Amino acid sequence: MRASAYPLIDAAEASALVLERTPVLGVERVALADANGRVLAEDVVATGPLPAFPSSAVDGYAIRFADAGTTLRVLGESAAGRPFDGSVTEGTAARILTGGAVPDGADTVVMVEDTRLDGNRVKVPTDLVAGSNFHRVGADVTAGETVLRAGTQLGAAEIGIAAATGHAQLAVCRRPRVALMSTGDELVEVGKTPGPGQIPDSNRWALLAALREAGADVEVMGIAPDEAEALRSFVTLALRNADVLVTSGGVSVGTHDLVKPLLESIGTVHIGRVKLKPGKPFTFATLEGGKVAFGLPGFPVSSLVTFEVFVRPALRKMQGFAQLQRPTLPVRLGYDARPTAERTEYQRVTLRREGRELVAETTGSQSSSRLLSLAGAHALVQVPAGDMTLKAGTIVEAMILGLP
Amino acid sequence: MRASAYPLIDAAEASALVLERTPVLGVERVALADANGRVLAEDVVATGPLPAFPSSAVDGYAIRFADAGTTLRVLGESAAGRPFDGSVTEGTAARILTGGAVPDGADTVVMVEDTRLDGNRVKVPTDLVAGSNFHRVGADVTAGETVLRAGTQLGAAEIGIAAATGHAQLAVCRRPRVALMSTGDELVEVGKTPGPGQIPDSNRWALLAALREAGADVEVMGIAPDEAEALRSFVTLALRNADVLVTSGGVSVGTHDLVKPLLESIGTVHIGRVKLKPGKPFTFATLEGGKVAFGLPGFPVSSLVTFEVFVRPALRKMQGFAQLQRPTLPVRLGYDARPTAERTEYQRVTLRREGRELVAETTGSQSSSRLLSLAGAHALVQVPAGDMTLKAGTIVEAMILGLP
Repeated sequence: MRASAYPLIDAAEASALVLERTPVLGVERVALADANGRVLAEDVVATGPLPAFPSSAVDGYAIRFADAGTTLRVLGESAAGRPFDGSVTEGTAARILTGGAVPDGADTVVMVEDTRLDGNRVKVPTDLVAGSNFHRVGADVTAGETVLRAGTQLGAAEIGIAAATGHAQLAVCRRPRVALMSTGDELVEVGKTPGPGQIPDSNRWALLAALREAGADVEVMGIAPDEAEALRSFVTLALRNADVLVTSGGVSVGTHDLVKPLLESIGTVHIGRVKLKPGKPFTFATLEGGKVAFGLPGFPVSSLVTFEVFVRPALRKMQGFAQLQRPTLPVRLGYDARPTAERTEYQRVTLRREGRELVAETTGSQSSSRLLSLAGAHALVQVPAGDMTLKAGTIVEAMILGLP
Repeated sequence: MRASAYPLIDAAEASALVLERTPVLGVERVALADANGRVLAEDVVATGPLPAFPSSAVDGYAIRFADAGTTLRVLGESAAGRPFDGSVTEGTAARILTGGAVPDGADTVVMVEDTRLDGNRVKVPTDLVAGSNFHRVGADVTAGETVLRAGTQLGAAEIGIAAATGHAQLAVCRRPRVALMSTGDELVEVGKTPGPGQIPDSNRWALLAALREAGADVEVMGIAPDEAEALRSFVTLALRNADVLVTSGGVSVGTHDLVKPLLESIGTVHIGRVKLKPGKPFTFATLEGGKVAFGLPGFPVSSLVTFEVFVRPALRKMQGFAQLQRPTLPVRLGYDARPTAERTEYQRVTLRREGRELVAETTGSQSSSRLLSLAGAHALVQVPAGDMTLKAGTIVEAMILGLP
């Protein structure tokens, strides 16, 4: 047993290094039903205008503006999908329903509420606005217009636009395939009764949720064996189909910590220790074939905080996201945030509104084993290394996990 | 063709009415792997303390504080999952690894960096803190403590806590099963070439994404037939396995709009028109067996805005969420938000940071057919009915869809 040989790297430097070494994945085509949350790999261009035809915004009558204030003969009906195939001429009108095509000859639609029908003759008011109550060809989108740009994250509206412009499939960045495993002799499957010195393997389920939330396609590999050769076989198998390896535990300096030596032997370990609290033993390696490996610490809070700081941005880079980091907002500290001498600390806070401000309160003991410090947390507050307490009342930029 | 017989209901009143008539669904047990995003239906209680045994926070030596400054004989090792089965007595120490159980007799752990090993004898420093470097039994969670409350949304940390306290399955509220269909003769499947007066059915794919994002389990039913009896059979079939029916289109007042009459015949229509822009024709009905139906307007923006205002909160109520509405934040308007005389308007805006403030800019033309007004929108700004423009510079509470 010895002190770690890995240099302690500054947290911001480590973050930049991880992103620099993480590749963007390839492109695939997906159906609209599978496009939610994905990132466009190519611009989406409208081949024709939207609307493609002049389309009524209301139920009423399609008329000539010149016929305002007169009584018109109703020639027929234009319903959505069932256009009227004649023309509206002087002294005539066509009944029109919302979404129906405005017939040739008509230049105005009058709402049914503003008319009086008698047999097949309709009285229209005098105070009309020419060209009103219908959507003109190309009013929303012109032919050839780029409606969505590569790099856009697809949500409901974006998928709707792609559909409306006739795209049944979209080119998106591939999702990272992640092999997830826990390491450590002390772990038992959740639900089994732990023996002396044993604990349930909770990190795997927490990380599974975090990985999926970040867009990863996860293969859950179980608890890795705690013996060098068996671990090597286990990891080799896991990496056959994965872009990313995520382990938790086994990256500290003890004699039974096997992850770092294994990563050294199958790739290059760029980061072995970080000036970060919690999360000092965080490990990052690049492997053959553009794959990357994240060795997360075994303490539950450390594994999730290093996930937030390093893994999530990397997974987002792989998927082509423009914004890799969590959004930040200014918050007023409701407590004294005490720093750690040599390490950047990410303190977990809840947020509440006070007037126009968000006020951050600590979630209590910030021990790296105490997951309750992260449960219900709305944000992470970065406290710089040093000896300067961020006093209650200070405004800081908080990493927003969720709004209250 | 006639003006609608349904009274125009105030938007806030309609919102309250929908929530009042929407049931909370039943409870089911899910495995941890399926728990992300779900809402706890029961409190989660720790049966034992966490940590369950005194557990080392570092790699080092477990010693008696009374032996500070002396040289100790190393008796053996306590690694994670492999506890030392002897006791530490005067003049002795046990090597200990992170996560290892602190042996009987030891009351302090000293970090390896602070020691000097010579053979099997270790020199420990004088300046020790009694009880340091290990996690005490029950320091994080005490036996019998409620670690998660019913109503909590489960994310990574909460799932981790449930796992750490030995719960392999959790009682959660059931997700709503939603049958989703589009109506309208004008619709063609996306990817097919629209005929005269036809448009691609884009709403279904946009709503599918929005529904899934809101936690629904969606059955995509396709385009419903535009004939009364065929529609009735189609909807009856859809409702066999669904808790919720969501349609888009066919709720305006035209002669071919069949959804409202159908809902009248199989249930009770509580809302047929709302003082809302976009989304005036929004329809809500309760059906047999505690089921509910949402008839969304056919215009793309109207369908998604009424989804946000009425359907999403209802789906969240069904799933047991405590917070039904989107979070709001104060934003400064960067434009003059002009109101509509009789209807509450939800204007779509992007947000950008300016100093400590969020500034809202309009997404351009707010036409109900123009989905580009919702693409990339960060928030909805509610503009009250009337004739008072909310001037640029005004601070308003915006419904946050996503932060910039």
